Amino acid sequence: MAVTESLHEVERPAAFWSALAELLGDRLSRRAADREAHGHDESWHPAVPPEAVAHVRSTEEVAAVVRLCAAHGVPVIPFGAGTSFEGHVAALRGGVSLDFSGMNRILEVRPADMDVTLEPGVTREQLNVALRDHGLFFPIDPGASATLGGMASTRASGTNAVRYGTMRDVVLALTVVLGDGQVIRTGGRARKSSAGYDLTRLFVGSEGTLGVITELTIRLFGVPDTISAAVCSFPSAAHAVDTVITVIQSGVPVARAEFLDAQAIGAVNRRSGSTLAERPTLFFEFHGTAAAVAEQAELVQAIAVDHDSGPFEWATRAEDRSRLWKARHEAYWAIVGSRPGARGWPTDVCVPLSRLAEAVVAARADLDQLPFPAAIVGHVGDGNFHCVLAIEPGSPEEIAAAEWLNVRLVARALAAGGTCTGEHGIGFGKLPFMVAEHGPAIAVMRAIKTALDPAGLLNPGKVVPPVGAVAPDFSKFKDVL
Amino acid sequence: MAVTESLHEVERPAAFWSALAELLGDRLSRRAADREAHGHDESWHPAVPPEAVAHVRSTEEVAAVVRLCAAHGVPVIPFGAGTSFEGHVAALRGGVSLDFSGMNRILEVRPADMDVTLEPGVTREQLNVALRDHGLFFPIDPGASATLGGMASTRASGTNAVRYGTMRDVVLALTVVLGDGQVIRTGGRARKSSAGYDLTRLFVGSEGTLGVITELTIRLFGVPDTISAAVCSFPSAAHAVDTVITVIQSGVPVARAEFLDAQAIGAVNRRSGSTLAERPTLFFEFHGTAAAVAEQAELVQAIAVDHDSGPFEWATRAEDRSRLWKARHEAYWAIVGSRPGARGWPTDVCVPLSRLAEAVVAARADLDQLPFPAAIVGHVGDGNFHCVLAIEPGSPEEIAAAEWLNVRLVARALAAGGTCTGEHGIGFGKLPFMVAEHGPAIAVMRAIKTALDPAGLLNPGKVVPPVGAVAPDFSKFKDVL
Repeated sequence: MAVTESLHEVERPAAFWSALAELLGDRLSRRAADREAHGHDESWHPAVPPEAVAHVRSTEEVAAVVRLCAAHGVPVIPFGAGTSFEGHVAALRGGVSLDFSGMNRILEVRPADMDVTLEPGVTREQLNVALRDHGLFFPIDPGASATLGGMASTRASGTNAVRYGTMRDVVLALTVVLGDGQVIRTGGRARKSSAGYDLTRLFVGSEGTLGVITELTIRLFGVPDTISAAVCSFPSAAHAVDTVITVIQSGVPVARAEFLDAQAIGAVNRRSGSTLAERPTLFFEFHGTAAAVAEQAELVQAIAVDHDSGPFEWATRAEDRSRLWKARHEAYWAIVGSRPGARGWPTDVCVPLSRLAEAVVAARADLDQLPFPAAIVGHVGDGNFHCVLAIEPGSPEEIAAAEWLNVRLVARALAAGGTCTGEHGIGFGKLPFMVAEHGPAIAVMRAIKTALDPAGLLNPGKVVPPVGAVAPDFSKFKDVL
Repeated sequence: MAVTESLHEVERPAAFWSALAELLGDRLSRRAADREAHGHDESWHPAVPPEAVAHVRSTEEVAAVVRLCAAHGVPVIPFGAGTSFEGHVAALRGGVSLDFSGMNRILEVRPADMDVTLEPGVTREQLNVALRDHGLFFPIDPGASATLGGMASTRASGTNAVRYGTMRDVVLALTVVLGDGQVIRTGGRARKSSAGYDLTRLFVGSEGTLGVITELTIRLFGVPDTISAAVCSFPSAAHAVDTVITVIQSGVPVARAEFLDAQAIGAVNRRSGSTLAERPTLFFEFHGTAAAVAEQAELVQAIAVDHDSGPFEWATRAEDRSRLWKARHEAYWAIVGSRPGARGWPTDVCVPLSRLAEAVVAARADLDQLPFPAAIVGHVGDGNFHCVLAIEPGSPEEIAAAEWLNVRLVARALAAGGTCTGEHGIGFGKLPFMVAEHGPAIAVMRAIKTALDPAGLLNPGKVVPPVGAVAPDFSKFKDVL
């Protein structure tokens, strides 16, 4: 892992460090290994280590750390599981990483209201284990065992979003420490409210740049009576994607509709020993009563056959479904792992459904020109897909080729009315696209950032591009537009 | 309708009026009747007329009017259909009402993406007529034929929200004129995005206090294959509400689950000549394939019978369903109309589902002490219910009694983790409850308001309480807490 020094050059006064140490005791770490581990996520982006790591334990403690940092002009950067992809945790201006792994208590499960209140360090896997006895589950599944705080901060989604929504939809209430250390609560436990500005939705997706989330109340769902999953392959990516588009347009409430291209299937087969046909493939999951699941499955099979699908392989037993989705979720690592020493660069555009097939086909054509392994996986029911690139992070040529691809994908997505990121967020990796996507609305984001963080100490250098930033010149990619 | 003069006392310079007239021609009105009509909504709140009404025709024209008003320190107040309930359109500081009834074009329906782009003056009924040939519909139904701009501004919902969500969930993108006349676009047509702050959700529900919505892109849904509706009555409100709670907890995807108490049913019978049993009653609607609807209906009937329901009366033909829902939607007018000369005061709390039955029962006990007709109707699948009060607006005693009730309802809802408004919004009627509901988070709302509208000209006096505002003293209602 390459390590880049942060832009921070100033030494903090000794009084700052001693006050912080007094507050945290041995839960304050300035060891190089800790700092390095907290300066990077799972992506290819180089590590930019914080000056220290604060292993926080409570809202009050976070508030005290933030107040102390504010008094000394020191940035704070929240850190969940480090599973983000756009450099969200990099300490670009130095500062203190707030590690939430010690704030992982599930505070209250309320089965009658189907909601839960928990600390931000709880992982989605931990939550689902705890919910098992209540007949409830938390559906949002980005693959990684991310923390709920991190998932809220990046507005994460994943394979179930087509049915259950994204973090935008399921977060009911938040406790947030503001930049001056004040603690607020947003939202409430009612399922809907028209009481003023939707601060919950403002903090969801703000990546720690407007405040630090220290508690979440989240909507849950009943475990379906019946769950059934299936895999089927198609003669082309367009056949597969068009199948999903028709399924969605027909109103069939599929719980998951995932696409893997032939290259992704090949990587999965080689990693896990599976023997799936190396063709463009869809993974489906159906939730409901036995009758509803049977009917949905029948409707979807009929649509797939109309699009020249191969036979459906069914997984109805829990262990078979687990194996199937493990294969899907391991696709990223299978692709990246297919090349020794490589790091993953996952792209993340999302387009209106009607433009999805052409976007995927064009992406595949671009991938075929790259000098490294690359495959497509996608949450195609939402119009969202990832090209997973296995690059040598030390190679300027490979970085340049990956950037070439990424810019083409984004230019195409924006021209189609889509977005540069469906679920990974901006961090600093996607910052260059913000002006192109939002235009003058960036001024509103900047006004909000300045109003809530005038000193610029909350995860600085992320989400909001600097004043004077301009959109990339997409004109050199005229063939994509 | 009583008319209260606004707090505005200053004469605007002649140059302002002549510039505005030059811009709008005969679409600028300063006639008393127009002003009075634009100073009130459908509630009991007294009219506070604007100084003039601008019948706007385009985003560019709205921007020009807003720029001119900003230059002269004149407030602007957006006006859709005037169907709000909390005085949202009252010109509390004078200013110009922006009437959107002339901006009612449906700009583009995209069946493949199941979305539509339209101007804010389009009403939901107009939209659904236009969608009929596409096999699509817009589900959100607050009863009134509100405009989409108004519904977005108040984060409206209504009878279908339990299945299809609220305006929060379906607005994909907005065009907004900011307070300085700049035009921005928020969001996009992708079904999800993690690209920066969720400005769309910030403007939805902001009631014209952060900017003026001039275009919306909205998610649509396929018309279900089969729709079936049913009515059934119960021995008590608690039996009815507990039925719905169990239905929701069982995961049955009902499209509508509406409650009317015995008094509301009585008013409906007298207004429409229907002969429904004058007992606490639920109206259900089921959407899906024929088999799915049949299964949902069976599950719900079994749960209702467990709660001592009377027999289900079914409406499967479109005209029978229309009649049934017309009765439900007319409940408000039936209750208010039961008393000649009365105006309606609809309360609007929303609580977590587990607290709904006790909240409804306690509300009914309070209503029985009031000196005027009052009944309960509710979107109980969401935990949201309205007490509809038929008051004599000129009577200080009746206003005081209604306020007594409203404060008790809100105190109870907030103590249960709920909200003072599920769907009507704040306007100025609910302003006294904002500090009680949001506490220190009000400072964040105020910071955002100040950042985007430093001169305070965008629908002033709404949503954000003034500096120094404190929560009402709920301690005198100790018996409710």
